[in-house]
Amino acid sequence: MLERYLPILQWLRVYNRSTFTSDLVAALIVTIMLIPQSLAYALLAGLPAEVGLYASILPLVAYAIFGTSRTLAVGPVAVVSLMTAAAVGNLALQGTAEYLAAATALAFISGGILILMGLMRLGILANFLSHPVISGFITASGIIIAASQLKHILGVDASGHNLLDILLALGSKLNQINLPTLVIGVTATAFLFWVRKQLKPMLINFGMGERLADIVAKAGPVLAVVATTVATWGLSLDEQGVKVVGTVPTGLPGLHLPSFDADLWQQLFVSALLISVVGFVESVSVAQTLAAKRRQRISPDQELIGLGASNVASAASGGFPVTGGFSRSVVNFDAGAETPAAGAFTAVGIAIATLVLTPLIFFLPKATLAATIIVAVLSLVDLSALKRTWDYSRSDFAAMLATIVLTLVEGVELGIIAGVGLSVLLYLYRTSKPHSAIVGRVPGTQHFRNVDRFDVETCKRVLTLRVDESLYFANARYLEDRIYDLVAKQPELEHLVLMCPAVNLIDASALESLEAINQRLQDSGVRFHLSEVKGPVMDKLKLTHFLDELTGEVFLSQYDAWQTLSKAEQAKTVAAIR
Amino acid sequence: MLERYLPILQWLRVYNRSTFTSDLVAALIVTIMLIPQSLAYALLAGLPAEVGLYASILPLVAYAIFGTSRTLAVGPVAVVSLMTAAAVGNLALQGTAEYLAAATALAFISGGILILMGLMRLGILANFLSHPVISGFITASGIIIAASQLKHILGVDASGHNLLDILLALGSKLNQINLPTLVIGVTATAFLFWVRKQLKPMLINFGMGERLADIVAKAGPVLAVVATTVATWGLSLDEQGVKVVGTVPTGLPGLHLPSFDADLWQQLFVSALLISVVGFVESVSVAQTLAAKRRQRISPDQELIGLGASNVASAASGGFPVTGGFSRSVVNFDAGAETPAAGAFTAVGIAIATLVLTPLIFFLPKATLAATIIVAVLSLVDLSALKRTWDYSRSDFAAMLATIVLTLVEGVELGIIAGVGLSVLLYLYRTSKPHSAIVGRVPGTQHFRNVDRFDVETCKRVLTLRVDESLYFANARYLEDRIYDLVAKQPELEHLVLMCPAVNLIDASALESLEAINQRLQDSGVRFHLSEVKGPVMDKLKLTHFLDELTGEVFLSQYDAWQTLSKAEQAKTVAAIR
Repeated sequence: MLERYLPILQWLRVYNRSTFTSDLVAALIVTIMLIPQSLAYALLAGLPAEVGLYASILPLVAYAIFGTSRTLAVGPVAVVSLMTAAAVGNLALQGTAEYLAAATALAFISGGILILMGLMRLGILANFLSHPVISGFITASGIIIAASQLKHILGVDASGHNLLDILLALGSKLNQINLPTLVIGVTATAFLFWVRKQLKPMLINFGMGERLADIVAKAGPVLAVVATTVATWGLSLDEQGVKVVGTVPTGLPGLHLPSFDADLWQQLFVSALLISVVGFVESVSVAQTLAAKRRQRISPDQELIGLGASNVASAASGGFPVTGGFSRSVVNFDAGAETPAAGAFTAVGIAIATLVLTPLIFFLPKATLAATIIVAVLSLVDLSALKRTWDYSRSDFAAMLATIVLTLVEGVELGIIAGVGLSVLLYLYRTSKPHSAIVGRVPGTQHFRNVDRFDVETCKRVLTLRVDESLYFANARYLEDRIYDLVAKQPELEHLVLMCPAVNLIDASALESLEAINQRLQDSGVRFHLSEVKGPVMDKLKLTHFLDELTGEVFLSQYDAWQTLSKAEQAKTVAAIR
Repeated sequence: MLERYLPILQWLRVYNRSTFTSDLVAALIVTIMLIPQSLAYALLAGLPAEVGLYASILPLVAYAIFGTSRTLAVGPVAVVSLMTAAAVGNLALQGTAEYLAAATALAFISGGILILMGLMRLGILANFLSHPVISGFITASGIIIAASQLKHILGVDASGHNLLDILLALGSKLNQINLPTLVIGVTATAFLFWVRKQLKPMLINFGMGERLADIVAKAGPVLAVVATTVATWGLSLDEQGVKVVGTVPTGLPGLHLPSFDADLWQQLFVSALLISVVGFVESVSVAQTLAAKRRQRISPDQELIGLGASNVASAASGGFPVTGGFSRSVVNFDAGAETPAAGAFTAVGIAIATLVLTPLIFFLPKATLAATIIVAVLSLVDLSALKRTWDYSRSDFAAMLATIVLTLVEGVELGIIAGVGLSVLLYLYRTSKPHSAIVGRVPGTQHFRNVDRFDVETCKRVLTLRVDESLYFANARYLEDRIYDLVAKQPELEHLVLMCPAVNLIDASALESLEAINQRLQDSGVRFHLSEVKGPVMDKLKLTHFLDELTGEVFLSQYDAWQTLSKAEQAKTVAAIR
């Protein structure tokens, strides 16, 4: 029991020197990678750079205690940082104490929601984010993030939470471009793209091992940071208008509780819920991918608690919302991390950086950080998924397109809410006209097939309708309409059989519909039968009066139904002839 | 084509003297019943009494032209009138010109929505109102309506849109009760209850035919109206504080377009949408019940157009939202109406009443109208449905209870929205953990059954999981979790077969999950197979790369899978022994 809620107890017991060494090496590599990322994502969220470092210390320790993935690396990530900026940007001005307080409160509320969902085992709620919606959302977020960073590359002031606002703001400032900033920004971006695409194959060509080449290539941003910082310091570019990170307070963050302002909490609640769910879905899918490679298991419900604890820890140490990040988790995995201790060691690394390195990043240009963000997020943009989804399913495509368009045009929150709403509606719509077929007997067999597709035996006084979907409120009335239509068209009809081999559920609405069908068919002189009802569905029906009132019978197999009803029919015909 | 959109063309062609006589008799009876109802429901909606009459003329003619039910009687109904009061009450004060204008605009917008839904064949949208939600909503509305009429019985001023407000307002006015009003109100209510419960059996005892007895009993309200009006006039009770209908303008309503105020339309849109859907669901279920009794058909999509035209007609003639009413349609049917012409004749009857009778209702006490409303709506209240639904399905019960409680506490609009939202969420939740079973072979047969329930053959290197639900976004991740769990628990596993006989759909999210499962099982050295995939599902999968990437095979039957995989297994074992 205790081990379930404290996964650290499972791996700490078997911890030894070998795992310690592996974890330490991985932690060192992840630390180097995480420093520029955490600074950059803090700026993306509209926060001072040091807040990114703060969000990369305690949250990692909390996850190491409560998380179930051996290799997930938590911290600030792009999409969640964008969502933070959108949520907090509505309430306070960037740079104010209120803005920081709101971001911290957001992390706290989000952490609380995640822990609560974990305790109530509601990880399942994340399922309402369908894949096309999350994929469309990440693509659109990537585009917005990249666009929002252009201002740092160009060296102008411009902001907005949707694509149009951002582009308009940029457009109006094009005459204020700062040339040295532009040179740094474009060079850094080009360099990082080159590192991402070309460096690894080149290193391998030079005889470096593939894994090492991969890790070196992932450290590209560090090189860009060092080079541009030195250049800015050496050439005093900050005096020529290049914006730099500037003074970052040295020292660890203090611990304090976030603001408990009821108004603020209410305003942030929906945003926190969205951030929680999006962050959880991203994180759990990374964790599952990595766990499967080593045949390990993660527990989604405990992951909620782990991520929740991380966010609470982030809030307590002056940070902002965090979650498991894709690229850094892959680096952690590839670098050989074996337990969550690697995360705790990374936290120590970042803490040392906070104590020692902050004076060194005074001259780090914001343009460089923007370049690292742009290169990272453009890899998230996957417009080809639109084509793939279109080919497979039009309604999934519609949900995806709506998510992308609304996220770009109206912002992240409306985009994801509309996407979720639409995918639910489309699913209900899709099942509201279920596939159904009138079936007849394949001559000489016990099989029954669609009369439109096969040459089968039917009987004009007996009609069998097979429905290939669970019966529930969204399609209950459709079933009624379909049956009344059939009966109205076939005046000789005496028996209607509903064949239910694919009916996994009959809810209360569908039960009412079946009762209405039974009643109305009785009024029209038609008996209503069921066949091939599944065990669990039948158990439910037995609790009601429906079976007592049913004018017909429930047949175990459609063949039984056919034999009983068509024999009665033959007997009647014979009697009539005599 | 023309006949589809103008159903009148179908029946007018075969119209003759016999149908004319039947329709005329039915119309006469319905007219007598409709007069007090339309006055009462106008008061319930917070409107002047004559507006009820106006809403019972042109709308009936419009329905006769565009509707598909032969016997549906449209006009003001209780629940829609309550919803009108709730919607308009937020925007204007009762008794003002703005209030009337808003009610008329509401009918117009609602009519437009219904016509649009009909043209787009979106009758299916009404399906999102599950039966427990609509039944709970009507029960709660009945309670609110009855409570809201108590002020007329007590002769005090008090109002509110939810039960608590109404009861508190009444409570604070108990010292202002008007005794003559109370006497009239209680007597009328008691009389009407007696009529409803006792009169019909008594008349039958006296030798009256059942159908006639039923119709006479349904005319009870008319008797109460006449008696209390005469008493009020004779005893000058209006001078003792009994509130009467008072001066009602004589003459037909003028035709005019409703207000096209964009702000007003925006404020009324959601209310109009809810009224449209609720009205449609009530009406179409009455129409279907009656049509089935004569083996007739109605077309739900054309019904939308018919009801939409009625509401537009109501708006154009100064009325408020209308729909098909249950009790008056049953009376119309029982009285022998054969075509929608009966409705048109009823319209003529009401028009004559508007021209001639209005001076006679000056002394009609509002308490009498309140009594007719109370007796009518209390028959809608069905708390026993709560028990029945609880017995059948806990999640349907939860949706129903939430609808009732929220409607009573927060009002009609929030009640129905929450009910719909909750029933959708609960459905998704219910299918998000689908029933699934590990299956094995029943020895000596080709059948495969749940290993937990049957004594079946299994093989530790081959595992077969049968899932009894369509695979879509709400359960895709659950499937992943379940499979990773199974694989992590069984280290010898080499083959995993997913058996899909009950999978009616695989959406894009589930496809991604299957791809992830395939990939991750490959990483763990397990081949992934499918069996018994349905034709339409397989057709979809063939459009993707999934089948190319699948590490295993797709078997037509589970028996094929068993034979192929366990034979390979045996061969391997034999080879290993040699």
